[in-house]
Amino acid sequence: MANAAATVSVEKLLHPRSIAVVGVSAAPGSPGEAVVDHLRRFRYDGEIHMVSRNREEVNGIRCVPAIDDLPKGIDAVVLCVPQAAAVEAVRACARREAGAVMIFAAGFAEAGDEGMIAQQQITEIARENGMAVAGPNCMGLTNFIDRVPLTFAPGLKATAVEGQLALCVLTQSGGMMSSLRETSQARGIPLSYAISTGNEAAVGVEDYLAYLLDDALTRVVTMYVEHIRRPQLFLQLASKAREKGKFIVLLHPGKSEASREAAQSHTGSLAGDYTVIQTLLEHEGVIMVDTMEELVDVAWFLTCYPVLPDRGTAIVTDSGAFKGFALDFCQAEGLELPLLSQATIEAIKPVLPEFTTATNPLDITAQALTDMSLYTAAAEAFLADAAVGSLLIAVLPGSPRIGLAKGRAALPAISGSRKPVAYVLLGEGSQLADELIDEMKATGVPLFRSAERAIRALACVTKAGIARSETGRGRCTVTVTPNPLPGTGALPEYLGKQYLAAAGIPVPAGELAADVEAACEIAGRIGYPVVIKISAGEIAHKSDIGGVIVGIGQESELREAWTRLHDNVQRAFPGLKPEGVLVEKMGIRGIEMVVGARRDPEWGPMVMVGLGGIWIEILKDVCFMPTDISEEAIVEKILTLRSSALLRGARGAKPSDLKALAKVVAVVAELMRTTPEVAEIDINPVIVYPDGEGVLALDALVVVSE
Amino acid sequence: MANAAATVSVEKLLHPRSIAVVGVSAAPGSPGEAVVDHLRRFRYDGEIHMVSRNREEVNGIRCVPAIDDLPKGIDAVVLCVPQAAAVEAVRACARREAGAVMIFAAGFAEAGDEGMIAQQQITEIARENGMAVAGPNCMGLTNFIDRVPLTFAPGLKATAVEGQLALCVLTQSGGMMSSLRETSQARGIPLSYAISTGNEAAVGVEDYLAYLLDDALTRVVTMYVEHIRRPQLFLQLASKAREKGKFIVLLHPGKSEASREAAQSHTGSLAGDYTVIQTLLEHEGVIMVDTMEELVDVAWFLTCYPVLPDRGTAIVTDSGAFKGFALDFCQAEGLELPLLSQATIEAIKPVLPEFTTATNPLDITAQALTDMSLYTAAAEAFLADAAVGSLLIAVLPGSPRIGLAKGRAALPAISGSRKPVAYVLLGEGSQLADELIDEMKATGVPLFRSAERAIRALACVTKAGIARSETGRGRCTVTVTPNPLPGTGALPEYLGKQYLAAAGIPVPAGELAADVEAACEIAGRIGYPVVIKISAGEIAHKSDIGGVIVGIGQESELREAWTRLHDNVQRAFPGLKPEGVLVEKMGIRGIEMVVGARRDPEWGPMVMVGLGGIWIEILKDVCFMPTDISEEAIVEKILTLRSSALLRGARGAKPSDLKALAKVVAVVAELMRTTPEVAEIDINPVIVYPDGEGVLALDALVVVSE
Repeated sequence: MANAAATVSVEKLLHPRSIAVVGVSAAPGSPGEAVVDHLRRFRYDGEIHMVSRNREEVNGIRCVPAIDDLPKGIDAVVLCVPQAAAVEAVRACARREAGAVMIFAAGFAEAGDEGMIAQQQITEIARENGMAVAGPNCMGLTNFIDRVPLTFAPGLKATAVEGQLALCVLTQSGGMMSSLRETSQARGIPLSYAISTGNEAAVGVEDYLAYLLDDALTRVVTMYVEHIRRPQLFLQLASKAREKGKFIVLLHPGKSEASREAAQSHTGSLAGDYTVIQTLLEHEGVIMVDTMEELVDVAWFLTCYPVLPDRGTAIVTDSGAFKGFALDFCQAEGLELPLLSQATIEAIKPVLPEFTTATNPLDITAQALTDMSLYTAAAEAFLADAAVGSLLIAVLPGSPRIGLAKGRAALPAISGSRKPVAYVLLGEGSQLADELIDEMKATGVPLFRSAERAIRALACVTKAGIARSETGRGRCTVTVTPNPLPGTGALPEYLGKQYLAAAGIPVPAGELAADVEAACEIAGRIGYPVVIKISAGEIAHKSDIGGVIVGIGQESELREAWTRLHDNVQRAFPGLKPEGVLVEKMGIRGIEMVVGARRDPEWGPMVMVGLGGIWIEILKDVCFMPTDISEEAIVEKILTLRSSALLRGARGAKPSDLKALAKVVAVVAELMRTTPEVAEIDINPVIVYPDGEGVLALDALVVVSE
Repeated sequence: MANAAATVSVEKLLHPRSIAVVGVSAAPGSPGEAVVDHLRRFRYDGEIHMVSRNREEVNGIRCVPAIDDLPKGIDAVVLCVPQAAAVEAVRACARREAGAVMIFAAGFAEAGDEGMIAQQQITEIARENGMAVAGPNCMGLTNFIDRVPLTFAPGLKATAVEGQLALCVLTQSGGMMSSLRETSQARGIPLSYAISTGNEAAVGVEDYLAYLLDDALTRVVTMYVEHIRRPQLFLQLASKAREKGKFIVLLHPGKSEASREAAQSHTGSLAGDYTVIQTLLEHEGVIMVDTMEELVDVAWFLTCYPVLPDRGTAIVTDSGAFKGFALDFCQAEGLELPLLSQATIEAIKPVLPEFTTATNPLDITAQALTDMSLYTAAAEAFLADAAVGSLLIAVLPGSPRIGLAKGRAALPAISGSRKPVAYVLLGEGSQLADELIDEMKATGVPLFRSAERAIRALACVTKAGIARSETGRGRCTVTVTPNPLPGTGALPEYLGKQYLAAAGIPVPAGELAADVEAACEIAGRIGYPVVIKISAGEIAHKSDIGGVIVGIGQESELREAWTRLHDNVQRAFPGLKPEGVLVEKMGIRGIEMVVGARRDPEWGPMVMVGLGGIWIEILKDVCFMPTDISEEAIVEKILTLRSSALLRGARGAKPSDLKALAKVVAVVAELMRTTPEVAEIDINPVIVYPDGEGVLALDALVVVSE
């Protein structure tokens, strides 16, 4: 894939040994002033140079009047210059052989054609000179490890990085970088870097991601990205992150049509198909989240607990009312609350208050106030249960003193747990003891005030953990013999079916007839009842105009139907010359499903299976898969459909031939994987018969790129 | 309805002019000590009496040794005594003619049979003496208006009530009362009362609710209730609240089976059917929420803005990245973002930065930093737009100083707005200027740190506002002639259909046949093709055992089918004597829907319409309605179904006869409303034909209570 090219090295942007700030003479509150102030406050320990047209000295450092007066080979030049001066400044940096350049100015690709041209010039200068040019239209970046702030982001604070589970905030939007950085720092999450890439003229999120995968301190990368410009490279990096035990948590606006349009006008580039992006990225282990809250909460969990739980959650609470809510809410969020093992029940029973049963969730009641060891005992027993993947402790706040005592009672049991634990002090906004916050931070237990957020985050990491533990990854067992494509564009149904049949997908017996005599001959040979379908590329929905006649039982009916079919077509498309009529053996009735695939021009192919016929548009009960997936995983996916109850055999009916359906999906996946010319396949309906009796593709559309 | 009895007066619990605390001698940290401490700190200005067996004086007040030593007619006696002493203490209070009693002790109905008996004794003493006995197993209540704390809740703070839009927290769980009270106070929401009702032996949430509807200060009641014990009374009160322009916001655990079971063991009483409860309560204007977050956030909105918006939200932001997210998230939450009017676009265009289009959401870009008047102008223009029901402003935090400047720029436009406004400062956890918090509080604009929560709350109040503005309320126009019920229990299909047909629901022509000759005679009369169905109360799913044979085209087929039908039945139920065979004219095909109704023994009837046939169980695409609903509202409800696209006429098909379907629903509603003996109706499928061609009830079950 052409765009999976080598990445640009961002070493000199993230770890410059020398920095020049250009444009420090700007007014108070200007980017230039902010960068200089950050460098001073962060006590950056490399060389600092300044370029100013009207100041002689800044912070005790002598200013030179122009970039051309700087020494050669400075690692990173930060351009705090207006848009109009930016391209020339980048050229000057190239002349001085700078390693990297940071451009803050806006007004490029996002601002119309002129800006786009200026941005392309920047891209070219960067490429020609092997210079890592970041931005434009960005807020810069901060390296918290080495205290390098190449940013004018307001409110920037230096925080230390301890341990080896740091978080990198990586966004396109500068505002979101600042926002996520502030939130993460407020939680005490160790930050390695906060990076905004802006318009990505020459350096994009993929370049930073590649670097971060080899960064010893960064374990989690939390990303807010509106446009992934190098999808194939991104997928490769995601796969590598997964292998290295690192986590990418991604919020990617673009689910809605309106959002995709907004992204286009905001970033000046087309967004991809969200479903394709989500399917492929999740397959590579990227944790996709829906909200900014989840983006932060999930990243927090992962910095505290670097192993994804692959089973459900146990809940300990001292509020019976919360228990009822938690049962409802966990069900709504798809978070399983596993049954406790007999051993856990036995272990905990002796210490529980009278009338309390050892269930999950467990309500240890207000009696815990007089016997705080209940918190310890319950947490310990639950964490020891093999059926339990994570633990949620949700307690009533009481007073700050009581809240502290409750937390301290739980800490011995939960600190050091490898299984994720969320500690929730209900009653958000109520006063907390500072010691509680400090002690939770010190032991690395995430302290939530919202049970909903803790549950949503646990549901998200658990879902990711279960997906990761599933064996479904890998190629299917079908092999598809290379099979010449009989044309380009949308193939006529009979040709599409021939192509699919050659690949091993059952289709009804049938042939194209040029006249009614040929039709009668074919029908006589394949046997009645038959269906006839007009064959003409011009007609997208044949049934809607009467271009399909089913249930033809004998020759006389066929002759009558032939005339009627042509009358219908002529009424809808006067003067149309059809290429013929497809005469097919009628399929017997069964469950109508759909199997399809499409190829995003940048992201690649994805397959789909769901409830078919007219239901696909109405109920949208479909699921999506990448093309490298085993038949077992396909069957598992099919069983997640709402309509899968129908396939399992509803109301005493026989279960359906899921294997045969999965094979159709697998063949379609293989065709998409091995034949890049195939742009789209749509088999709707494919009739699924009872187990052992196979499937039949009744209608099929194959689109071949021109 | 028997349980819609008069309520117990809670006047003396909420506004006692004299209080006695019984059991003040208890240990430090005990409820008795806490109550005395609260009375002192709240500077309660009524008479205070103390009962203690071993102390002579507490806080300068002389103690008497026993309840019987108290003066007669004290308004409220607070029992801080153990469970074992409670019943006797209540009796003593009755002897001293106390107006009200508060019992904190646990160990009653929630703790088994013995506790249940003790609780029943309390109920009887209360009833016999006309005494308002609150609890047991509760945390008491606080009247913030008159500074009356009858509670041992930890961390209790007195806050003043200003204005006339106060919030009352009303829960069963004491923990939830405290938790909601703490959260509300932290937000600066004016609180009138915080009440926990516990086991409700004699005084329940309905009694308080009745009182609160006449309370001048309380505008919003936020409830966390696991069991509504007097449904009919509650519905009446909800209706009254709606009339008075007051709001009830309710979180009611019990959506999941597990939650209902938990509630039963927690409160000692059976929970109702959540769908029935939700349908009926929402119809009476109760705002049902799904999370504790929404419970607080929605209540907050309603204390700030006492008018529900009945149209969508406009969004102003200075982050393009947020705009993309907001579009996705509002769509997910069902919050409409209306198109701006041309006037709004014209008004705002001149002040917008270059390259910015006046859309909703509007991104005023980072340029707003240099021209803060953009916040004012955008907010003003949006609020003035008639298509806009509420406004969300979401800004990047910057530094505390920048955040304050942004907020101050918006305030002139938003303070005093009658349309709800949510102000979101993104980057939760980042430092805020205290002035910002104070100024937002002072102007009554809710300040959120989470955009998700603001959007969810806006979606919730908007949904409630739209529902309230809809004209659908009121009776349908059909009248159902009283029609004798032909039996009890599950009526045989032919009798059920006769009953429904008499009420005006079209059913196929057909009759019960005792033998094959009769069957042939009936079929000859009604005309072929026919369907035959075994009639036997023992068989629940006739089709599953071959008890239904369709598509019988002539007499010879009917004779053959008759034998086959009886063979099938005998195989499944050897020796069964069917009461006959229903011979019916085959219905022509159409869209299979379901119309049903059930009656909750306590809450009353509810009707249902959805996608029918086998789909009902698999896709659960159904919607629910109360029985007092107009045909127009029924049609509107039907159009909310996912499958409504099918009814509207998918893929060129003719639209369906929605009016005829709505009439079936209306007739079923009228039957349920006027005939309390009908426990359940299930018409599945009812075939819906194209517009003007009506409907046909192909199968029907009517259950009559014995």
